[in-house]
Amino acid sequence: MTTTPRTVRTTVKTLGILGTGTVGRTLARAWAKAGHTVLLGSRRPGDPEVRALAAREAGERVTLVDSAAAVTGADVVVNATPGTVSVELLSAIGEAALADRVLLDVAVGFTEDFSLSHPGESLGEEIQRTFPRARVVKTLCTVDRNLMVAPDSLEGPSTLFLSGEDTGAKETVRGLLRDLGWPDGSLLDLGGIGTARGQEHFSLLFMGVAEALGDYGFGIRVVPPAATR
Amino acid sequence: MTTTPRTVRTTVKTLGILGTGTVGRTLARAWAKAGHTVLLGSRRPGDPEVRALAAREAGERVTLVDSAAAVTGADVVVNATPGTVSVELLSAIGEAALADRVLLDVAVGFTEDFSLSHPGESLGEEIQRTFPRARVVKTLCTVDRNLMVAPDSLEGPSTLFLSGEDTGAKETVRGLLRDLGWPDGSLLDLGGIGTARGQEHFSLLFMGVAEALGDYGFGIRVVPPAATR
Repeated sequence: MTTTPRTVRTTVKTLGILGTGTVGRTLARAWAKAGHTVLLGSRRPGDPEVRALAAREAGERVTLVDSAAAVTGADVVVNATPGTVSVELLSAIGEAALADRVLLDVAVGFTEDFSLSHPGESLGEEIQRTFPRARVVKTLCTVDRNLMVAPDSLEGPSTLFLSGEDTGAKETVRGLLRDLGWPDGSLLDLGGIGTARGQEHFSLLFMGVAEALGDYGFGIRVVPPAATR
Repeated sequence: MTTTPRTVRTTVKTLGILGTGTVGRTLARAWAKAGHTVLLGSRRPGDPEVRALAAREAGERVTLVDSAAAVTGADVVVNATPGTVSVELLSAIGEAALADRVLLDVAVGFTEDFSLSHPGESLGEEIQRTFPRARVVKTLCTVDRNLMVAPDSLEGPSTLFLSGEDTGAKETVRGLLRDLGWPDGSLLDLGGIGTARGQEHFSLLFMGVAEALGDYGFGIRVVPPAATR
């Protein structure tokens, strides 16, 4: 290590990111740039296509490993797998490996006709219920992957939401979001994991707005009443 | 008529508002203040409790009538009935009465456990499908009733959404929203009635944010990328 990662304000050192798609790789790159060590976890780490994709992000701080290694070697696990298969993929890794770990869940599941795969509840709730010992925090699922890592790319401030049962886990996640550039004032804690439902269902309005603007790179800001601020 | 309603910028004269709850009465008061004539439609216009509530808004420009009269006498019909029973109430009035009329739909249906009554689609779509000749426009359902009529009560500008198949109907509704104080720049046309799904599903995030802020009177603003504006 030849440089001092001055932008790191969290104590987290190693992030295990599950999912080598565009979201997982975008987050891997940004957190590595902020000074963290990233284990990029894949079901098929030997697959030439996966290796080629991961190689773009590889460096001294990003390493492609299999999914189980990305969990067991990490201080914080990030679920960036497709929402429709997240529970199956996490189950293959096993409940024991996830116990007591902060699980930052950014996934949303869509069916083939762009309806939500969890219409009556949310993926975040299902993950917490399936892995009761994991410390699930839902966030980052209301924005496009580019905005995730560049919140200052908008014409003004926007809001990012957090949902989860574990206060300490949410503090850890706040630190990681700060490392991506999200100011503390932009983060709104909605409460328990049940509130992940609102974040995930926002995807439907997100798609309508993206279509109307012709751009996915927008944010939303919660605008409070004038009298209370 | 002794005053000149200077704020009216639409050609609409008579609004039929279905629903005498807080939303319907709030809208009746605001549109009457803007110079429109309002027929406040109730299933039970003779009920003393309904009459007492309506009397608070009554004046030369607000009249309590039965639901059918509110539709047949109106240039624009506003659905402010509970979303869980809207289709049933509109059906009782009849498809013929709704034909060719602009139907401004603000309702969202919730089950007793605060889940959406239309989880797989939206009430707006169901209304348009059930009354194919009505010109349905979904709007105002992403904000609290007080913000509906006081968009300048926030600490900054916010965004209101429109969904519907009929361009002319959306223009009429834009005029009515201007009369409530919504500037043109705050209105975002999402497209066809299918996009009502996003507006209605936002209710779940709305409730989470309201709980977190301890206040229903907030708005959301779509914040575009800096480069495009």
